[in-house]
Amino acid sequence: MKLYTYFRSSASFRVRIALNLKGMKYEPVFLHMPKGEHRDNAYRQVNPQALLPTLELDDGTRLTQSLAIIEYLDEKQPQPRLVPQEALARARVRALALLVACEIHPLNNLRVLQHLKRELGQSQEQIDTWYRHWIADGLAKLEAELAGSSGKFCHGDAPTMADCCLVPQLFAAQRFGVEPARYPRLALINENCARMAAFQHAHPSKQPDAG
Amino acid sequence: MKLYTYFRSSASFRVRIALNLKGMKYEPVFLHMPKGEHRDNAYRQVNPQALLPTLELDDGTRLTQSLAIIEYLDEKQPQPRLVPQEALARARVRALALLVACEIHPLNNLRVLQHLKRELGQSQEQIDTWYRHWIADGLAKLEAELAGSSGKFCHGDAPTMADCCLVPQLFAAQRFGVEPARYPRLALINENCARMAAFQHAHPSKQPDAG
Repeated sequence: MKLYTYFRSSASFRVRIALNLKGMKYEPVFLHMPKGEHRDNAYRQVNPQALLPTLELDDGTRLTQSLAIIEYLDEKQPQPRLVPQEALARARVRALALLVACEIHPLNNLRVLQHLKRELGQSQEQIDTWYRHWIADGLAKLEAELAGSSGKFCHGDAPTMADCCLVPQLFAAQRFGVEPARYPRLALINENCARMAAFQHAHPSKQPDAG
Repeated sequence: MKLYTYFRSSASFRVRIALNLKGMKYEPVFLHMPKGEHRDNAYRQVNPQALLPTLELDDGTRLTQSLAIIEYLDEKQPQPRLVPQEALARARVRALALLVACEIHPLNNLRVLQHLKRELGQSQEQIDTWYRHWIADGLAKLEAELAGSSGKFCHGDAPTMADCCLVPQLFAAQRFGVEPARYPRLALINENCARMAAFQHAHPSKQPDAG
């Protein structure tokens, strides 16, 4: 398998964690997002969305959208399960993952920040304020969702697809000065994840393309 | 079942379509989003995310996030299937649904437009430009993804979760002056959906709270 990835891409980071949790080997193909390599025609042939990541299976089939990729991996190799077996638990894990993937990340990804700067003429300070606003809004929602739970991870005592989304989002938040400590449940889960090799090896700082 | 909904909420619209396709009856509970009723404490007790929709099961269990709700409905009552059975087809339908739910809708929902106006001081014209930019960007990605396909719907000849996402997004696009005709495959699929009662009855204009 090949994974088209960029070290700081949150969505790529999610899939790297999932692959590592399942012990699945992959060959990384690096694209430099700030240079716009994901928008080149060559990559559009791979992924018409011009987004990262893409997972290319050995037979050449290509999968897009990080959560769809993780669900696919989970269906093909269910151990360890990243989406639980019981229907309500599945719905819960998916809702937590989607809370990150639909409510927080899309407002703060590279192309939105670039658009705020280039098209709306926002200053770096204004962009940082935008970023922190949506991060704080979204992480508060997630903390509220998890307030009543007591497991080591987002759902229970083993990592799921929700944790694959949470950890990259908290990493991105820290880069912009939002400290996970403001969200005690999230911070605790983040620490528990950080102790696992699968999360450590997926970390942006450990990627060969980290610059 | 109860569905907390607002007629113009895209995410509520998605779930209404899915419920209708499956012939599942529900009792609507209306929240007026422009008045901010979804942010009231009463609703936060129902859904800590303060987002629509929420599906409340007869035993009081509450589900959030439209795609997680649709997947749950599909697992509990698989006919007609909104997520296909085969792993690659599942990944494909999910990727198309997520392309709408993660790449287009989050940039154009009500709270983002309000934030652009109130916090960033953008004019209505600037906000409309923002809206159209992300709609055009996202729908072009979706059209590129579907360019090679020939079914009546996003995936094959029966509606799936991807169509539950596409139709509300095109409805929202039209409200802001983006014509589906610019995207021939999407426009064709939209017309095929519009012929089905399940989509018709879920339409914002047919909701009791439409004002």
